[in-house]
Amino acid sequence: MDNRAANLSGSATAKSIDALVTPTLLLDRGRLGRNIQRLAERAKKLGVVLRPHMKTAKSIDVACDVFPQGPGPITVSTVAEAAYFADHGFRDITYAVGISPASARRAMELCRRTGADVKLLLDCVDQADALARVREATGMTPSVLIELDCDYHRGGLRQDDPRLLDVANRVVAAGAKLVGVLAHAGESYGLNTPNALVKAAENERSAAVRAAEILRAYGHACPVVSVGSTPTAHFAQNLEGVTELRAGVYMFFDLVQHGVGVCDRDDLAISVLATVIGSKPENGWVLVDAGWMALSRDRGTANQQIDQGYGVVCDEKGRVLEDVIVAQASQEHGILSIRAGSGKSMPEMPLGSRVRILPNHACAMAAQHDFYSVVNGDSPKIETRWERMRGW
Amino acid sequence: MDNRAANLSGSATAKSIDALVTPTLLLDRGRLGRNIQRLAERAKKLGVVLRPHMKTAKSIDVACDVFPQGPGPITVSTVAEAAYFADHGFRDITYAVGISPASARRAMELCRRTGADVKLLLDCVDQADALARVREATGMTPSVLIELDCDYHRGGLRQDDPRLLDVANRVVAAGAKLVGVLAHAGESYGLNTPNALVKAAENERSAAVRAAEILRAYGHACPVVSVGSTPTAHFAQNLEGVTELRAGVYMFFDLVQHGVGVCDRDDLAISVLATVIGSKPENGWVLVDAGWMALSRDRGTANQQIDQGYGVVCDEKGRVLEDVIVAQASQEHGILSIRAGSGKSMPEMPLGSRVRILPNHACAMAAQHDFYSVVNGDSPKIETRWERMRGW
Repeated sequence: MDNRAANLSGSATAKSIDALVTPTLLLDRGRLGRNIQRLAERAKKLGVVLRPHMKTAKSIDVACDVFPQGPGPITVSTVAEAAYFADHGFRDITYAVGISPASARRAMELCRRTGADVKLLLDCVDQADALARVREATGMTPSVLIELDCDYHRGGLRQDDPRLLDVANRVVAAGAKLVGVLAHAGESYGLNTPNALVKAAENERSAAVRAAEILRAYGHACPVVSVGSTPTAHFAQNLEGVTELRAGVYMFFDLVQHGVGVCDRDDLAISVLATVIGSKPENGWVLVDAGWMALSRDRGTANQQIDQGYGVVCDEKGRVLEDVIVAQASQEHGILSIRAGSGKSMPEMPLGSRVRILPNHACAMAAQHDFYSVVNGDSPKIETRWERMRGW
Repeated sequence: MDNRAANLSGSATAKSIDALVTPTLLLDRGRLGRNIQRLAERAKKLGVVLRPHMKTAKSIDVACDVFPQGPGPITVSTVAEAAYFADHGFRDITYAVGISPASARRAMELCRRTGADVKLLLDCVDQADALARVREATGMTPSVLIELDCDYHRGGLRQDDPRLLDVANRVVAAGAKLVGVLAHAGESYGLNTPNALVKAAENERSAAVRAAEILRAYGHACPVVSVGSTPTAHFAQNLEGVTELRAGVYMFFDLVQHGVGVCDRDDLAISVLATVIGSKPENGWVLVDAGWMALSRDRGTANQQIDQGYGVVCDEKGRVLEDVIVAQASQEHGILSIRAGSGKSMPEMPLGSRVRILPNHACAMAAQHDFYSVVNGDSPKIETRWERMRGW
């Protein structure tokens, strides 16, 4: 596959992480490859198509590592992502956020322009009715998935909600094409035992399969039965009746997923490289130049068994400094300190020395940056630079 | 002043907010002007120079509204900000984050290239010593401020710390120019009564003035005595001995500042425009297309008397919908609901209708966006589009 983005971004020609301006985002390509392979193998064993969610990586280069044979089916979270990946050759795209009339129209204009098939998500009759006007305005026939709510997480209909059939009928009446149902076990992020995760995956599966059965009983073919979240994708025991699996954060993993029990800390593929700019020995503090602007304000581990502050601190080579976390963050300052109660003391961190900080939430940390400096393991060598897209 | 950034950003030619792709950032220029004027008048009355912090707005166009007569003294939080404003004609810049040897060198290279005077901040002898090498490498003599810690907030030295004099002497020994001291009452964000804010401002003032007196007693001229935070800047009763005042979020204000007691909700100048994409009447939820990617993960009001969730919801014209907040946020979904315990019920919000969401923290919300659509009051008209800079 040869449609990677050109890496021509000005003076960004650092060959070693030592030459990088900090704070900046690193991506370990070895770990990325391992994470990609792990879920690809699971999907194969479970007999489903993997439809990776690109909202975490937002990078054509990462997508090329996921699909070394050429573009495959993907999931996106914005119309801008759909356009970016369509412009890089992807054709089978699921836009997994409920539509407004305006976003549906933009998506169909994109399909007309690029030849991509962007599948739309909805869960109410108003959205279905709006598709008639979208079809008229764009001349395109939308493909539609009905959003299910398997765990009372956010949007979507319960599988046994009588409105499910109303919505399906109105999609057809609007002249759109009903292609299936989609469930996302968002509540699985709050779990932390294998048993609970296996149960959540089975609940997600059975809800989606049941909804498809109901629709089929009333004459809707419903070929697509789509499920997924990073935790349930890694704990599903069987996916009978499911046709495709979605996940996004699995490519990078993060401390939240580690707390859920889906990955080891050594699987985390991104980190922020930061420089020591001061210390306050009397408080046990070391100050670095990565604050929430570089790390994000995400505190997703705050409610887990181990609160990781604004992230776990590693040395410059990526080796975890046990119990050293980013305890506080302001816009461009991070305060490193020892986790309360650990009994350890802060390691020596002289002015100008560097650390890598692991993310609470990979999607949020990565979103604060415009590019990845791609490294491998503990080598300081920068293999390449990959740009990220952003916006809506 | 005529060095505004060219507004040539592709297809972004919307004339009305109705035509904007959501989620997107709005800036009310009338409110911006009022906020700018309010602090400019205070600084004048207090007899100090105002040195606005550009880390909130990160926009040359906002800077032009702050300085209609041409570039004045500014504060920045990254070397990239310093470079951006220097390239737009600003010369008197304070980089108000403690230096590493690498960032000091970049700042001095910027001074050499542009002729700007970028003042550096430090609080330890290792930083001071590093300046000798920076001077050697760049041929530039750094101007230096010593960071004070007036309220045990982050970095800096206490005004009575004996290291203050050591650091000052080492700055001089390194061949750099000691220009003064700088204090930031960061803990004032946690206050919420006028009395406490007045006291915090006086504490910030007296710490900075005392430090300058000590340095002068030992032969350091210390011409600059710099203080500031948005809350203390608005509550200082006198600034005797202080030469300059810094603040940044005052241009936009936000719900955190409203909770502290510095502004009214009607002063908030930025908001995210979002579109309704669904509802869950059984939960009292309305779903919009603004999640944490558009709003930021900032939950700065969580510890205030009134927790505003991920932001306060207004109608499309910017009128607050009382007790409607963004109760939950995922990457591209916001869940609107009534504040717990208010007894109200959710107003009607049909699919496709639009709302404006006020920020917990203006710096964090704005950082999620690449441009401002500039509006005025409740008019849907877009007056212009202003780009933001980002990165380090």
